[in-house]
Amino acid sequence: MNLFYAPHIDTKTQQHVLSEQESKHICKVLRMQVGNLIGLLNGKGLLATTQITDANPKKCILNILDFQQEEASKQHIHIAICPTKMNDRLEWFVEKATEIGVTEISFILSKNSERTKIKFERFQNIAISAMKQSQRLYLPVLHQLMSVKEFIQKHDNGFIAHCYPSVEKLNLLNVYDFKSPILIGPEGDFTQEECVLAEQKSYTFIDLGKNRLRTETAGLVACMQAVNKLNF
Amino acid sequence: MNLFYAPHIDTKTQQHVLSEQESKHICKVLRMQVGNLIGLLNGKGLLATTQITDANPKKCILNILDFQQEEASKQHIHIAICPTKMNDRLEWFVEKATEIGVTEISFILSKNSERTKIKFERFQNIAISAMKQSQRLYLPVLHQLMSVKEFIQKHDNGFIAHCYPSVEKLNLLNVYDFKSPILIGPEGDFTQEECVLAEQKSYTFIDLGKNRLRTETAGLVACMQAVNKLNF
Repeated sequence: MNLFYAPHIDTKTQQHVLSEQESKHICKVLRMQVGNLIGLLNGKGLLATTQITDANPKKCILNILDFQQEEASKQHIHIAICPTKMNDRLEWFVEKATEIGVTEISFILSKNSERTKIKFERFQNIAISAMKQSQRLYLPVLHQLMSVKEFIQKHDNGFIAHCYPSVEKLNLLNVYDFKSPILIGPEGDFTQEECVLAEQKSYTFIDLGKNRLRTETAGLVACMQAVNKLNF
Repeated sequence: MNLFYAPHIDTKTQQHVLSEQESKHICKVLRMQVGNLIGLLNGKGLLATTQITDANPKKCILNILDFQQEEASKQHIHIAICPTKMNDRLEWFVEKATEIGVTEISFILSKNSERTKIKFERFQNIAISAMKQSQRLYLPVLHQLMSVKEFIQKHDNGFIAHCYPSVEKLNLLNVYDFKSPILIGPEGDFTQEECVLAEQKSYTFIDLGKNRLRTETAGLVACMQAVNKLNF
């Protein structure tokens, strides 16, 4: 069943009209007709099974036949990541982390970040595509860019992955608590000042393995370790 | 220390001459001079620390000062993956799996594969870059494309991830043995015939989690589950 994102539907919705772009895709590209079934996801656990009642390529009308509501996972995975120098690397991270099961992504700006702007809307669209692709019913929550300092002030007790030696670091697989954010630094690592602030705010220094990982790989490895900890 | 790949060096090598391209990069781009240190990796566990003795931008000469030989991990991670329709997705897999710790990658061709040719040399170069980037001393072994059937005939007792329902599948995290290959299908999944052949050859059907994963994500998730199993 083809899936579309419809953030505003709930269990009281009886009919849904697709956007012009979606309608054109369904009627012209997929050549679907009256009676064909389409799934709608609201990104908050609801899957509506619908049937085309008017295959209008400008505003295709769907009647809702059935709902399925999935309970939210109690296990929260929140990755706060610095933008990568090359934008496509962060796009990959958003796609893969969504497929794998991240529930929240924050974009954070270190003093060492080489990129200071992100294409937030594009990341949202990538997350929506990956949600549909992987048949997840929950869309991860994405947050606008804020500075590392501001982020740490807002969220204490998190986990921070940095490359400075001579400090004790714990294995994320052993210590992750499924609620606190995991902070991933930029290509040049977090500044010492940012690490000190994290320590003051009771952050745990973590280790993601012995290889030196790129920013987006570190983000994905952290996400995957959290998912695997769930499954063990 | 900047790292270069020199597959032919061993502990008897005393001097090494860089290629013209590498020499130009070192002398013109990095502006390194006589006396500066450079690391050489042979991809088989050897790291040689060297010093520039002639900063010639056409053939830069290095004297070897010291060797460090890392023992090979006894834990083997072998992923056999079908090419993705979009080539960059498989490139991404090779890069990330190398960073994370894969030891062997086979490219396999399913009857359902939409792409039937791969750029093998490009994958080799991506693996070399990722090895240097992640400071691993071992280069994963890459194998040329062969058909799924031929591969299964050659390697029995492997693990195969497919999406057909109504068969018992085991969680890779629980059953991986660190020697047998893990087979990942193309966008359209393995054919039923390929799965039957795998079963005849004592393959274990595995499950990589509840979300539907893209080919390259499935390959990486399998690799990461193996790595995490090591660390648990």
